[in-house]
Amino acid sequence: MTGFCDHAWHAVADWFAAMTSHPFLVQLAEGTLPERVFARYLLDDAHYLKAYSAALAALSSRADNPDDRLLLARSAAGSVEGERDLHRAYLLPRGIDPDAPDAAEPTPTCVAYVEGLRAAAALEPFGVGMAAVLPCFRVYAEVGAWITERTRSVGAHPYRDWINTYADPAFAHAVRAAEDLTNRLAVGVREAERERMLAAYVRSTRFEWMFWDAAWRGECWPQAS
Amino acid sequence: MTGFCDHAWHAVADWFAAMTSHPFLVQLAEGTLPERVFARYLLDDAHYLKAYSAALAALSSRADNPDDRLLLARSAAGSVEGERDLHRAYLLPRGIDPDAPDAAEPTPTCVAYVEGLRAAAALEPFGVGMAAVLPCFRVYAEVGAWITERTRSVGAHPYRDWINTYADPAFAHAVRAAEDLTNRLAVGVREAERERMLAAYVRSTRFEWMFWDAAWRGECWPQAS
Amino acid sequence: MTGFCDHAWHAVADWFAAMTSHPFLVQLAEGTLPERVFARYLLDDAHYLKAYSAALAALSSRADNPDDRLLLARSAAGSVEGERDLHRAYLLPRGIDPDAPDAAEPTPTCVAYVEGLRAAAALEPFGVGMAAVLPCFRVYAEVGAWITERTRSVGAHPYRDWINTYADPAFAHAVRAAEDLTNRLAVGVREAERERMLAAYVRSTRFEWMFWDAAWRGECWPQAS
Amino acid sequence: MTGFCDHAWHAVADWFAAMTSHPFLVQLAEGTLPERVFARYLLDDAHYLKAYSAALAALSSRADNPDDRLLLARSAAGSVEGERDLHRAYLLPRGIDPDAPDAAEPTPTCVAYVEGLRAAAALEPFGVGMAAVLPCFRVYAEVGAWITERTRSVGAHPYRDWINTYADPAFAHAVRAAEDLTNRLAVGVREAERERMLAAYVRSTRFEWMFWDAAWRGECWPQAS
Repeated sequence: MTGFCDHAWHAVADWFAAMTSHPFLVQLAEGTLPERVFARYLLDDAHYLKAYSAALAALSSRADNPDDRLLLARSAAGSVEGERDLHRAYLLPRGIDPDAPDAAEPTPTCVAYVEGLRAAAALEPFGVGMAAVLPCFRVYAEVGAWITERTRSVGAHPYRDWINTYADPAFAHAVRAAEDLTNRLAVGVREAERERMLAAYVRSTRFEWMFWDAAWRGECWPQAS
Repeated sequence: MTGFCDHAWHAVADWFAAMTSHPFLVQLAEGTLPERVFARYLLDDAHYLKAYSAALAALSSRADNPDDRLLLARSAAGSVEGERDLHRAYLLPRGIDPDAPDAAEPTPTCVAYVEGLRAAAALEPFGVGMAAVLPCFRVYAEVGAWITERTRSVGAHPYRDWINTYADPAFAHAVRAAEDLTNRLAVGVREAERERMLAAYVRSTRFEWMFWDAAWRGECWPQAS
Repeated sequence: MTGFCDHAWHAVADWFAAMTSHPFLVQLAEGTLPERVFARYLLDDAHYLKAYSAALAALSSRADNPDDRLLLARSAAGSVEGERDLHRAYLLPRGIDPDAPDAAEPTPTCVAYVEGLRAAAALEPFGVGMAAVLPCFRVYAEVGAWITERTRSVGAHPYRDWINTYADPAFAHAVRAAEDLTNRLAVGVREAERERMLAAYVRSTRFEWMFWDAAWRGECWPQAS
Repeated sequence: MTGFCDHAWHAVADWFAAMTSHPFLVQLAEGTLPERVFARYLLDDAHYLKAYSAALAALSSRADNPDDRLLLARSAAGSVEGERDLHRAYLLPRGIDPDAPDAAEPTPTCVAYVEGLRAAAALEPFGVGMAAVLPCFRVYAEVGAWITERTRSVGAHPYRDWINTYADPAFAHAVRAAEDLTNRLAVGVREAERERMLAAYVRSTRFEWMFWDAAWRGECWPQAS
């Protein structure tokens, strides 16, 4: 019997296909993605990771099971560390400081995604909150594997370090642990709540695609004048 | 001495100017706004009011002062009633049911705005949460007055009932009460937090413009395939 | 078919029997309760109502159904108004100001009860939070009916106004509405969550008895020296 | 210049004196504390640590500063691990399972303390929540040092392992980190909020004394019949 997460991943197969044919990821894999587009993505990602660690900590505080609380507290800590690494390895060398007063704002898509995660993690039923944060785990594991496969025989690659982050077995292990937790939760709730979990999962996966797309398009906020 | 809210409203003067020159509001005032665009706006508005009443109730639960808690609990109740009236007076006659399984999704802009309000009301410092919900009060009062002024001499107007809602003195009174509360809060916090309040106010005002604009453009979610 | 609330009320029958044989309520009904004990109870009650309105507002913000949100927002508002009336009608004439810097602290029992309600309303599953706030509704309706019955033929009664508050049909109506909501929630969750709801209901009912008892005993906080 | 935490610790000097003269701690240090009293304390402590890790995770999710979020997420994880160690090293060997259906309930004092912490961590201003969780850090560090000092020359001691936990330099380091964070917060808020922080600190310290006292007295819940 397959669990909720495999079912949910199957339900978003079209979105994964759309990601791997999106020029952002195709060019990232080819190593031809313009540096300026990658930098824009990194800035959104720094903003995202800040909210993501907050969402994971909120879920940790709501977990009844000590193992689940521990897993989510560690994931929250890992997400803060991930943001730090991003800063050190990618943003600083590019002279980008997301906290500077004149830093570019995160894109509307990034803001919409992270505010929804923050709200879901703190306010929706626990299982719905977990389903909302999962696609970020699974999508990066799957995208990481997909890019690794396509770039295996390539020698030097401008985005190699970034690619390796998500191809790390430790990351795959974290994904599996979060999915196991969510599979257990899905078994313990009524069908109506499982449907809400699936809807949250699909929405977040769509936001993952939109997140790449916003960086690609250079999405901006409107100006008043 | 003017309070935080007058200062904040002054800071978003460009956005108010942008609203009153946006074709959505210009045509709404002229009575030439296509019915299909207005219906799209109403659907987003129904979704918005649901989250708005939740945000006001969350703020009510966090108010220390009994008068403030009462004001916000009544505002939350009033917002639910506003949503009901919208249903009865506008959506039902148009055959729109936002809760139907096949109902159109709220626009990305609407989702971004409401998720940010839900998160701010529950998770940000109380004054920042209040500042985030205020523009919806003030913008509708100002837009209501602006349209009323422009349509005073007009006889029949297709959107007369809707216009009258926001020109109601009871609404103006509710706006003033929420602003008084926020002015008091702003006095009691440090400059750094007052700046966060202002930033939240500006963001929500921008979302008010974007909300009209999303309905005007018929903003859609991307499709996977 | 009986719903969750009748089942839960049946499960706490022993506690209701313990209340109606507790000297606080026996003497309150007889009109022989020492004024100083009643005043102590009122002080705790003022503190309680503050937290109770916050809990109801938090639950309102978490209700998915607009009718439920409206009911709970109005209950929150009503609870603030109830606290105001208590102030005006009982505390002020006795020269008691619970907000004065030198006011007596609420009892340990009162603090334990209200902190548990605040936490449950904001952090436990919605149905568990509702079950936690319900006993205050039902216990006061039942105690009010019990005292009214026993004092019907009595002429002047020192606590007549207080008694009448809870014998008011409007209060009975509010109780029924909150119970209907909770009965619906109980139908929609799994057995394990229904058991958590029942446990929360029993704990709050026990706290209701302890609340009268703390006033009766003049429960105090320990002193460091 | 001394910070908030030194000032706050000074303000609770009487409570620390009351702890170190309480028979629970005096006999614990002497090694004469009845095993049954220690076991009762451990059961409450297991319950406490569960809520404490939830409170720390909630605070982590609310921290704006990534370093603070990381510290609190790790503290939450450490608190879950502390609870596990307690289980393995103390409860299991004594045949105590706090999660068994027939396990003794935590004492009223324990429940009052943990519900207040859960509520403060999630709902009070961030600094007030931090101030509420701090005494558990500092009191155990100070009590640990006090007992270690008194038992240094003693050979075998029945509670040696337990004593060593809190005399661990890693624990002292965690205390200092949490205090540094809170000192910084206290600098950034207005006097009125700093007073609320101090009040929360004093209340939690009093609960620490009451916690030992509840185990000593064998505090029980009332029975309905």
